[in-house]
Amino acid sequence: MGSLPKDCEHLLKNMVGDEIAMNPLDLGEFRRQEQMVVDFLVNYYKNVEKYPVLSQVEPGYLSKCLPSSAPEDEEPLEAILDDVHRYIVPGLTHWQSPTFFAYFQTNTSTAAILGEMLCAGFSVAGFNWVSSPAATELESLVMDWLGKMLDLPRPFLFSGNGGGVIEGNTTEAMICTLIAARERVLRRSGHDSITKLVVYGSDQTHCSFQKAARVVGIDPRNIRALKTTQSTLFGLSPDLLRKAIRLDIDGGLIPLYLCTTVGTTSVTAVDPLEPLCKVASEFGMWVHVDAAYAGSSCICPEYRKFLNGVEFADSFCFNAHKWLLTSLDCCCLWVKDPNALVKSLSTDPEYLKNEATESKQVVDYKDWQLSLSRRFRALKLWLVLRIYGVRNLRSHIRNDCRLAKLFEELVVKDGRFEVVFPRNFALVCFRIRPSAVTGMANGQAMEDENREAWKLNEVNKLNARLLHAINASGRIFITHTEVGGIYVLRFAVGAILVRERHVIMAWTVVQEHANSLLSMSGSNTHA
Amino acid sequence: MGSLPKDCEHLLKNMVGDEIAMNPLDLGEFRRQEQMVVDFLVNYYKNVEKYPVLSQVEPGYLSKCLPSSAPEDEEPLEAILDDVHRYIVPGLTHWQSPTFFAYFQTNTSTAAILGEMLCAGFSVAGFNWVSSPAATELESLVMDWLGKMLDLPRPFLFSGNGGGVIEGNTTEAMICTLIAARERVLRRSGHDSITKLVVYGSDQTHCSFQKAARVVGIDPRNIRALKTTQSTLFGLSPDLLRKAIRLDIDGGLIPLYLCTTVGTTSVTAVDPLEPLCKVASEFGMWVHVDAAYAGSSCICPEYRKFLNGVEFADSFCFNAHKWLLTSLDCCCLWVKDPNALVKSLSTDPEYLKNEATESKQVVDYKDWQLSLSRRFRALKLWLVLRIYGVRNLRSHIRNDCRLAKLFEELVVKDGRFEVVFPRNFALVCFRIRPSAVTGMANGQAMEDENREAWKLNEVNKLNARLLHAINASGRIFITHTEVGGIYVLRFAVGAILVRERHVIMAWTVVQEHANSLLSMSGSNTHA
Repeated sequence: MGSLPKDCEHLLKNMVGDEIAMNPLDLGEFRRQEQMVVDFLVNYYKNVEKYPVLSQVEPGYLSKCLPSSAPEDEEPLEAILDDVHRYIVPGLTHWQSPTFFAYFQTNTSTAAILGEMLCAGFSVAGFNWVSSPAATELESLVMDWLGKMLDLPRPFLFSGNGGGVIEGNTTEAMICTLIAARERVLRRSGHDSITKLVVYGSDQTHCSFQKAARVVGIDPRNIRALKTTQSTLFGLSPDLLRKAIRLDIDGGLIPLYLCTTVGTTSVTAVDPLEPLCKVASEFGMWVHVDAAYAGSSCICPEYRKFLNGVEFADSFCFNAHKWLLTSLDCCCLWVKDPNALVKSLSTDPEYLKNEATESKQVVDYKDWQLSLSRRFRALKLWLVLRIYGVRNLRSHIRNDCRLAKLFEELVVKDGRFEVVFPRNFALVCFRIRPSAVTGMANGQAMEDENREAWKLNEVNKLNARLLHAINASGRIFITHTEVGGIYVLRFAVGAILVRERHVIMAWTVVQEHANSLLSMSGSNTHA
Repeated sequence: MGSLPKDCEHLLKNMVGDEIAMNPLDLGEFRRQEQMVVDFLVNYYKNVEKYPVLSQVEPGYLSKCLPSSAPEDEEPLEAILDDVHRYIVPGLTHWQSPTFFAYFQTNTSTAAILGEMLCAGFSVAGFNWVSSPAATELESLVMDWLGKMLDLPRPFLFSGNGGGVIEGNTTEAMICTLIAARERVLRRSGHDSITKLVVYGSDQTHCSFQKAARVVGIDPRNIRALKTTQSTLFGLSPDLLRKAIRLDIDGGLIPLYLCTTVGTTSVTAVDPLEPLCKVASEFGMWVHVDAAYAGSSCICPEYRKFLNGVEFADSFCFNAHKWLLTSLDCCCLWVKDPNALVKSLSTDPEYLKNEATESKQVVDYKDWQLSLSRRFRALKLWLVLRIYGVRNLRSHIRNDCRLAKLFEELVVKDGRFEVVFPRNFALVCFRIRPSAVTGMANGQAMEDENREAWKLNEVNKLNARLLHAINASGRIFITHTEVGGIYVLRFAVGAILVRERHVIMAWTVVQEHANSLLSMSGSNTHA
């Protein structure tokens, strides 16, 4: 340890010394406060089931509860946690509640929380290898682990000259791969061709794709959302794709990128990967596979079939933060050609130059993503895989699918309801069936066609009212979608605390509100 | 709680029951394991100073230490933490070590770790208001708090019809504002004009800006990095900007966006905001202020002057995860016209429709950023502001600047060294001065001009060797840059655990290695 040169000692005179500088990492306080937060969370999980799962607060509620400026002086954690309990918790929609069946889940877990603690504890900004070799190397390693769990083709793994990276989210993964594809074409044809690039998805592709395509400068008129129908179970038709591409080429446009989906957000539809990839390859397009939700399930051999054909794609991505217990954010992207990303996303300013990078022996993940700095997210993924192990993770997936199947069978047993689309994973799409609301059309004189449309509209409205009544109860939270003109209730099983009794309770809540609605509308009220 | 309808009881027969499903949130295990990680981190902080601050591992080291596949069965946390200690810690470059003076710091703190625990604990995906009202409203509130701490003009605050949002990183903030600006123009002039858009920064602007501009489809030939010089202390010249814009307009191009910087990465130069904004406004351009590092300091009145002129900009951004104790990621962006973001980044699929959004009474942050899902990052920022209070946070900033001043004075006292650029914040830019290496040019016969160039090159090489020797020692970690042809050593004070003794020790390390290098090269070895 150094000492101040003699002729510099005066520098320390009259200085504000270390002793009065604040200490943001007092280890005694750290221990005491961590313990308080652990207690808080344990208490939260014990009670979460009792709270209204969908927050019942009014817009603007919080600014009435909290001061409008930051405090001048430090406040005790006791007071802050009291405010969390009093003002934040009622404003939460409780994604970890066992009565949360909305959207898709965002699983947390003990391992994820431990991982986040270590991540924030080390707080390294591992933008390149040298800035923290372990952050880069653990990520590469664990992405190969996960790739093997999914039985991804070897060309996607580092061990097969591809590679994986943890992105923040699906949109970022799409943007990065879109740019890799875009630059590959523009390097050939010149930047002005950007106005001619066309990207393809279906009308079931996640909205992030449209957004990502707009972000990278694709003309909104060149973003295709090809129509899907019940006949293909809302998967994208390869024939339709080929026709669309041909039409675009005839119009002087350049087909760039196809986004396929395994497990769409609305109804978990699965695009036929192999034939779609074959069409895209005829035209030299980049194919991305978005399995944001359903990807996790493919660690179970019985679900792996949904990825068949991924071997013909260029990139594959799913969110471990949905179903695989890592909590936000952990979006896992694999590409066959990492160099395509690096060539389009790399930066090389003097202040980041270093020997490791120049040796070309290392991965610099800053060149695989949008951001420079990046959190050490690999830690939590690694912890999840090791603390639970592959066998338990499969059991976690299967249990959710089992409970979804239970709910599906409850729906089927009640003649007033129907399962609208086949269940692939742990999402059940259901509604009150049209025949249960026959009473409503009585006495109306109209053409058959008009009657059909009118009827569909009435059925949709009734199901929307059912959703609203169920959610307003605060007992469970489910969401909806609309596919092929049909308003659908989505029951997504996946909260980590969910057990059979919650699914059964949920079904009771649905039935109670249906009883009441159907009796008001004079329809058949009995199953 | 519901019960299974009588005629459905058979459904549960032969099912795998809840009792064998894995439990990723066993509360007893949660308590026990959290305690272990707290112990681990306390131990880490106690010892961090003893580790080589710059990791000394070789590329590929980790794959030799860890298995190549995920474990089938669960592993005890004891074994995992043992691996963290044995294999991960040596591969870390220790950003929280008091001997870390590289790049800019990434501060963590007790409050940040607590905030991350709560964030991962609740694990809500607050993409829109209804998906967790508290996540949105706390973020809006705390961004107004922080805006007031920075004395941001009211039009940037929600209370002044602007608003703030926490983005993941600087690149995302730039991309989002670039797109808001881009769409404003393209809505008027048609999408094909994308090839004519020009963006402006200086040769000191962070590399993220070039990347962000490329991402949103700006022709790389239309990304201007205007030259700066010592005469303006490496700030961008408004006259030069005006000339460049005029030239582009004459060439048929459309000026779009100016990225100004307060505290550049290389040398913490400050662009003159007010005159630059005035130039940009003549041409209807969007002006963004990137204060990624230096922004935090502006909570102290004596540093606030560096933001003068921000009132004329459209957007302002800084990273609380650098200097303001939140740990990654917490990039704070304010805009005067949130609607410009929303109009360009919004998505509205059926599965996200809800009454709160339709009421237009709420903020849906998904439309202010790239991603759909978002972590509840406002929690940790709120915790930091409350646990420490504004007074302590100012003291935290001032203490780092005081220690940087101490280092600067040590450099100045040693005649062999010079401070290359004026210190604005807590970064000291220094080098071995040319006159200390006079010996090297002796006996060379060459033209004066060539001699100057040769000399500069020799001085640069010597300073590069000094950097390498210092970092190879593992005792401190500093980084370099090159500005105006000068190779500069950057000494960035900011690690949360840094105290006077570390700064003094660091200077001793610099001197020791300089002694040895200068004596080898036959130069003057005495101060």
